[in-house]
Amino acid sequence: MKIAIYPGSFDPITKGHVNIVERAAQLFDKVITLVGVNVKKNNLFSEEERLEMVRLATAHIPNAEADTWHGLTVDYAVKHKGIAIIRGIRAVSDYEYEYQVAMTNSKMQPEINTVLLFPDEKYSYLTSSLIRELAQHGKEIEDFIPDCVAEKLREKF
Amino acid sequence: MKIAIYPGSFDPITKGHVNIVERAAQLFDKVITLVGVNVKKNNLFSEEERLEMVRLATAHIPNAEADTWHGLTVDYAVKHKGIAIIRGIRAVSDYEYEYQVAMTNSKMQPEINTVLLFPDEKYSYLTSSLIRELAQHGKEIEDFIPDCVAEKLREKF
Amino acid sequence: MKIAIYPGSFDPITKGHVNIVERAAQLFDKVITLVGVNVKKNNLFSEEERLEMVRLATAHIPNAEADTWHGLTVDYAVKHKGIAIIRGIRAVSDYEYEYQVAMTNSKMQPEINTVLLFPDEKYSYLTSSLIRELAQHGKEIEDFIPDCVAEKLREKF
Amino acid sequence: MKIAIYPGSFDPITKGHVNIVERAAQLFDKVITLVGVNVKKNNLFSEEERLEMVRLATAHIPNAEADTWHGLTVDYAVKHKGIAIIRGIRAVSDYEYEYQVAMTNSKMQPEINTVLLFPDEKYSYLTSSLIRELAQHGKEIEDFIPDCVAEKLREKF
Amino acid sequence: MKIAIYPGSFDPITKGHVNIVERAAQLFDKVITLVGVNVKKNNLFSEEERLEMVRLATAHIPNAEADTWHGLTVDYAVKHKGIAIIRGIRAVSDYEYEYQVAMTNSKMQPEINTVLLFPDEKYSYLTSSLIRELAQHGKEIEDFIPDCVAEKLREKF
Amino acid sequence: MKIAIYPGSFDPITKGHVNIVERAAQLFDKVITLVGVNVKKNNLFSEEERLEMVRLATAHIPNAEADTWHGLTVDYAVKHKGIAIIRGIRAVSDYEYEYQVAMTNSKMQPEINTVLLFPDEKYSYLTSSLIRELAQHGKEIEDFIPDCVAEKLREKF
Repeated sequence: MKIAIYPGSFDPITKGHVNIVERAAQLFDKVITLVGVNVKKNNLFSEEERLEMVRLATAHIPNAEADTWHGLTVDYAVKHKGIAIIRGIRAVSDYEYEYQVAMTNSKMQPEINTVLLFPDEKYSYLTSSLIRELAQHGKEIEDFIPDCVAEKLREKF
Repeated sequence: MKIAIYPGSFDPITKGHVNIVERAAQLFDKVITLVGVNVKKNNLFSEEERLEMVRLATAHIPNAEADTWHGLTVDYAVKHKGIAIIRGIRAVSDYEYEYQVAMTNSKMQPEINTVLLFPDEKYSYLTSSLIRELAQHGKEIEDFIPDCVAEKLREKF
Repeated sequence: MKIAIYPGSFDPITKGHVNIVERAAQLFDKVITLVGVNVKKNNLFSEEERLEMVRLATAHIPNAEADTWHGLTVDYAVKHKGIAIIRGIRAVSDYEYEYQVAMTNSKMQPEINTVLLFPDEKYSYLTSSLIRELAQHGKEIEDFIPDCVAEKLREKF
Repeated sequence: MKIAIYPGSFDPITKGHVNIVERAAQLFDKVITLVGVNVKKNNLFSEEERLEMVRLATAHIPNAEADTWHGLTVDYAVKHKGIAIIRGIRAVSDYEYEYQVAMTNSKMQPEINTVLLFPDEKYSYLTSSLIRELAQHGKEIEDFIPDCVAEKLREKF
Repeated sequence: MKIAIYPGSFDPITKGHVNIVERAAQLFDKVITLVGVNVKKNNLFSEEERLEMVRLATAHIPNAEADTWHGLTVDYAVKHKGIAIIRGIRAVSDYEYEYQVAMTNSKMQPEINTVLLFPDEKYSYLTSSLIRELAQHGKEIEDFIPDCVAEKLREKF
Repeated sequence: MKIAIYPGSFDPITKGHVNIVERAAQLFDKVITLVGVNVKKNNLFSEEERLEMVRLATAHIPNAEADTWHGLTVDYAVKHKGIAIIRGIRAVSDYEYEYQVAMTNSKMQPEINTVLLFPDEKYSYLTSSLIRELAQHGKEIEDFIPDCVAEKLREKF
């Protein structure tokens, strides 16, 4: 069974993220969306809230799972027999950071490949931080995030 | 069986290309390296020579095959039940062209995904055109291309 | 009256180009789409065909006009009292070329400004050359170009 | 009357910013430079100081005004009948961020366009943060910022 | 004697940094690696620790020296008769920031040139922050940093 | 004696190129501007004309020389004891091509370093091809190229 890991902070998960999970689920036998826990970063949602929203937003994809992790993504991949780390790519600056992380991972675990996927062009500009800012100013956000997430985001403000 | 298509002109195939085939072969059940035939482009090697070199250079990869095609890559993928189009990515300008092609393909065949892979960093700068130029000036090229290819390239000049 | 010039080769005009004309027409009192004539470039469509397609594709925009020109865009702008040169921008490599042209124009005619507009994200990946390639291989192109253009493009192949 | 909004933090306004206001004032009937108030960001100058410096630095432009705002730029634009949001663009990384913001704004208010302008090439490298750093180390900054601003910046250190 | 200054935070120095010092030492008569002291930045290692690690890691290069500095690099260069400021460049986003700093420096001290060097491609993806993260999670880091630095980094966690 | 080689097609040499030679001449004991001869490329000026214009335009720099060469730049550098290959850099796309060439050169001659220099920002947008186009349409070009070159360029059209 070919397993792919899709790491991120998902604060919150957007329709662009969901689109990437759907694409990865066509390519691999199982996709695990991995909610990263970075103590230094100030997240809007807690680890548990982010995991729950990922689960709700990807519930329609039979071979998609979700999990959280406090360590390096490659260590999770080794432990759970993942062969690929999935990354969605929107912009050139994304690409350069992904290159640095992918090469470093590749040195540590050469048998795990980083796989870049393009989201659908209608999500090509979405970022969680812009969506948080819109929600904070009371704007409609249903176009950008799954309904279940929109509700929770509005509760925060 | 999950099949990936890796298109290119491979004029000639480099160690960077072989590295991408090796990586794709770990992710998918079968990888078909597809030598594209573009009548407008002046290639150094003929269609048959390029295909033969691809076959020799990837002979050590059990689930790798090679083929040629005069049409669009998506049409080949549909015909041969490919679910992914593989592209190696080295530079930002690569990335932008790949984005345009990937989005256009996606409109025509939404169920076929474009997958970007990074070559090993020691091949991150290799291009077929630079290698042809080095060969033309009598430089050593064994570091950059498989031995079987190096021989044929020297015969050309 | 504030007049903007939108130069390009339009070989052929795409829905992305039309989207830029619509946006420019909201910002300025008149927009002239200028079909550039470059003797060195091998165009698929003749000067007259390209101009006619631009006229048909922008006929629904009241303050849009179209013209052809064999010289520099800034010279046309001076002659027709244009205060802005419009450019659609999709990718980073576009941006850099536009910078070089804009700065050179600015030295010659400091009172004419280059204005970059983003096309709608659903046209963010369209290029005339990709569309010509699709048409050549008999693919459906109605999603990418106005109907009147699609017809003429199919006649070519 | 065609009104454009030019948002930013202007901490402090530089000669590059003034150059963009001058250009926008040629293209539109009125340009409002909008000093953004972001409670999370630690600015060197207060909201009132930044607004006053913008007013002084653009006093020579008859159709330029200045204002402050605590919300989203698009909401200000709607309220004040702005049809364009002006952004100066210096670098590729600027461009990508602008793309994300422009597309998000466009979803919310499709009738308001984002307009990118190039500053004069002699200001192509100026950033407020570099200028603050120079001032802090006692360097001459008159080449980079209007005289009235230079004075206030020196008072800070 | 032609002196070059190589500034950075070196928190800690990597094999990529050492590679740049080696290259600069071939081009100039003396290279001074300058450990920058920025009070705002939270460094993992103290000023003294970083300086000591730089000294150990470049001890094999006869014409390399090391120093620390709390001010602007150009001021150090003037004081110590440096004619060049050396910067290693890995990525496009590096390049843009370097452009802004180089142009600003050039305005203040036109006789001091910024010189960009490429590190060896096997260090093209290394960043101090990624290495700190790896060390924090107990990974092997000997491939990325000099042995003397690896030891000190492990002591921190 | 430290010798640097500055290769290019110089068709024709611009004020931006001269600016790079001046900067390199401050850093190295001798700078040789090397007019590359590429049979495949259609140059406007002949090898001899380009060499003569480079000589005239750099005559004021005591330690600058000029030469022509039909082979690889690294081979010229080895033959003439050059330790550095100079490249002016304007744009991100420049940077990526330079990276590929620099790494390939570095494999062949590790002791020769590629050195990137920024031209003065007032030449940051100049390209020989834009200047040829302006001259062809009868525009003033004295701002962009040395007087001796402007004269020869006008004679061509």
